Amino acid sequence: MKSGKKEISVGLLGCGTVGSGVVKILAGRGELIRARVGAAIRLAKVADLRPEAAAALDLAEGVFTTDAFSVARDPAIPVVVELIGGEGAARKLILEALALGKSVVTANKALIASHGDELFKAAAEGGGELFFEPAVGGAMPVIKTLRESMAGNRVESVFGILNGTCNYILTRMTREGISYATALAEAKDRGYAEADPTLDVSGMDTVHKLAIVIAIAFGTRVSYGDIFVEGIERITPLDIAIAREFGYRIKLLAIAKNLGDRVEGRVHPTMIPKSDLMAAVNGAMNAVKIVGDAAGEMVLYGPGAGMMPTASAVVSDLVDIARNSLSGAKKRVPVFAFQPRNIGSIPILPAGEVETRYYMRFAAADRPGVLSKISGALGHHGISIQSVHQKGRKSDGAVPIVLLTHTAGESKVRAALAEIADLDVISGAPVLIRIEDPNESA
Amino acid sequence: MKSGKKEISVGLLGCGTVGSGVVKILAGRGELIRARVGAAIRLAKVADLRPEAAAALDLAEGVFTTDAFSVARDPAIPVVVELIGGEGAARKLILEALALGKSVVTANKALIASHGDELFKAAAEGGGELFFEPAVGGAMPVIKTLRESMAGNRVESVFGILNGTCNYILTRMTREGISYATALAEAKDRGYAEADPTLDVSGMDTVHKLAIVIAIAFGTRVSYGDIFVEGIERITPLDIAIAREFGYRIKLLAIAKNLGDRVEGRVHPTMIPKSDLMAAVNGAMNAVKIVGDAAGEMVLYGPGAGMMPTASAVVSDLVDIARNSLSGAKKRVPVFAFQPRNIGSIPILPAGEVETRYYMRFAAADRPGVLSKISGALGHHGISIQSVHQKGRKSDGAVPIVLLTHTAGESKVRAALAEIADLDVISGAPVLIRIEDPNESA
Repeated sequence: MKSGKKEISVGLLGCGTVGSGVVKILAGRGELIRARVGAAIRLAKVADLRPEAAAALDLAEGVFTTDAFSVARDPAIPVVVELIGGEGAARKLILEALALGKSVVTANKALIASHGDELFKAAAEGGGELFFEPAVGGAMPVIKTLRESMAGNRVESVFGILNGTCNYILTRMTREGISYATALAEAKDRGYAEADPTLDVSGMDTVHKLAIVIAIAFGTRVSYGDIFVEGIERITPLDIAIAREFGYRIKLLAIAKNLGDRVEGRVHPTMIPKSDLMAAVNGAMNAVKIVGDAAGEMVLYGPGAGMMPTASAVVSDLVDIARNSLSGAKKRVPVFAFQPRNIGSIPILPAGEVETRYYMRFAAADRPGVLSKISGALGHHGISIQSVHQKGRKSDGAVPIVLLTHTAGESKVRAALAEIADLDVISGAPVLIRIEDPNESA
Repeated sequence: MKSGKKEISVGLLGCGTVGSGVVKILAGRGELIRARVGAAIRLAKVADLRPEAAAALDLAEGVFTTDAFSVARDPAIPVVVELIGGEGAARKLILEALALGKSVVTANKALIASHGDELFKAAAEGGGELFFEPAVGGAMPVIKTLRESMAGNRVESVFGILNGTCNYILTRMTREGISYATALAEAKDRGYAEADPTLDVSGMDTVHKLAIVIAIAFGTRVSYGDIFVEGIERITPLDIAIAREFGYRIKLLAIAKNLGDRVEGRVHPTMIPKSDLMAAVNGAMNAVKIVGDAAGEMVLYGPGAGMMPTASAVVSDLVDIARNSLSGAKKRVPVFAFQPRNIGSIPILPAGEVETRYYMRFAAADRPGVLSKISGALGHHGISIQSVHQKGRKSDGAVPIVLLTHTAGESKVRAALAEIADLDVISGAPVLIRIEDPNESA
């Protein structure tokens, strides 16, 4: 065979953490990749605005440049990896590369979630491909599994722990009983949270990933702004401890459900049964549970971020592109899993129409009649109570009252909560945490 | 676009449980598959020796035949699914189909493990493809993940719970404290074990799957007879209970490790820490842990067998074949993950050279000096004891002595065990269970 000399030239845009990982894999595992692919994947150009980024990378003469656009436009480079992030230069670079017929790999979930349609059209017109395995779940093959392995399934639902920062913080709070603020500070110290952790702890990073998952799982366009989101900032050790007593763990869960004419899509702190495998996903690890009508329940578990795992996903996409190129395949797998003409616009179920079970905690005056007022308000809104508990100690003259509801509508729950918050026997804002428990219904 | 009329004709050989599932998916999810693939996957022919098999399937006129060879040879059928099993007719049918240039999907792990080379050559010469995702782990994308998603990784190790029957039996023994015989009878009652469960409980089914995993993970030819195997038949509730006290669960674990010039490959009941996610894999569920040098530790979890999950894997392979065909791709991914010329013959480490930690249980006379004789024998063979315990009650005048060792060589351990078994203070055969604990070394 003559394929020993074949190679695919790649241009890497952005060499921060993940980019450096890609350089490392292509340099260190080049022979192994060639043994699998039958061709070399060669890093032809590496672009970064910071010239000092090149220093640590041991690149060959002439590979590094500070001009990313020159790489995106280079006719000798058919494949571009975008790891710059953001929706500014990254978007322009990807669009240019795609317009020139190049294939692109990106880890940019925010960009795909917000400009997926535009990118997809550019790929379709240019003739290249758009890959984004590294955008969701690090090395875990979330995108590949949904686009390829589930191809014979109606995907019923997807549940994800998709943000390592949040999962690390919640795990530390659960194990050590420490506050959110303390756990966040620790996460920053250890490099699990950025200086400004807002994108992670607010749940927005998870929303971006969920939008991508919904699109490819259900074959629909998604406006990620329609996805309900609540972050982990207000979770307390008390709620974690009470959840534990009821047999639950609290995770920031991305939830996608296929309701046929609607899609349920939401991201919020969620109580899940401790017997659920997802409850055993701790620290900075991620997991995705995919439920298909034929496949049943599958879980992928792994490091959802980090230099080498994410770089591993980039390289797996590069290998897919190389294999397509070598075998002459064009548009082998549709970018968003479905043929363009079969992608629908299934609306996201409005948050108020979601039905689930709820955990509620109130700081209530320790006197007779309080419970009847609370349960009266809930009954008035048609919310059925599963159990009521007084948990924890009195503080500032108030005792914590905890309620678990049967399945109820979100808008009714919110209305009831507002009514209860106004009661003179209630101090402070009520706490509301949603429960996702496949073992219990109604 | 004109692709709405495109279709890929498939011939299905064998329609027992999984075959019926394939018929069901292709009939019930045909539109969904077409929306993803851009072409229909049409069941052109279904062959089964039992004419009555057709009755339940609601097949169109003329689709069913009792002559599988006529399907394998049919020039109008470019893709064949082999679900007959065994190494007789199945092998001949696959070889004929491949020789005619057809692509083949098979769930036949025994055949691939024993005749992989022959099948692979037939595919190479014929120009078709050979897919076998349903052979390992049901719907879980074990093969795809190893062949594609790990392409940038040196795969360091793979650990699998790959047999639902064994895992069901061990789970029931663990939860209920029942004997192996009782749990096996229950598994048969519930359809988790066949009338003759030997292939499953002996570990041989797991060996076949592990042989396939080793081949594609490490790029080597494998003689599955070289893989050390021990079944679950002699596991007792007592050992399970003692394991639990030490923080371990007992699983039938398939173990593959990349030692560079050797491959460790073994299947046996194994104590794993209860904190390991694999320890939480219960009932008939399967899981595979893949450790890559870049990806880190990933786990796939799901139903490892059963009608619809396995059929889901068959259909995912059919979709891959359809996509290759539609996009003009040939030999896109090598059958055994590596380019043929790069597949080596890395020897399996002989069982005696394996080094791991061990659990040993002896029925010993309850009198002074016993322990010194046992530990003397171990010391004599250079085996270092981590801890010694007297566990459980005296019976027949003997007390159970339990030892955990530090890492030791298997051949030394066996020699020491033979010496100990000969001691006059020991009654009955010693029990030996291997420990796989990444948290503890030496």
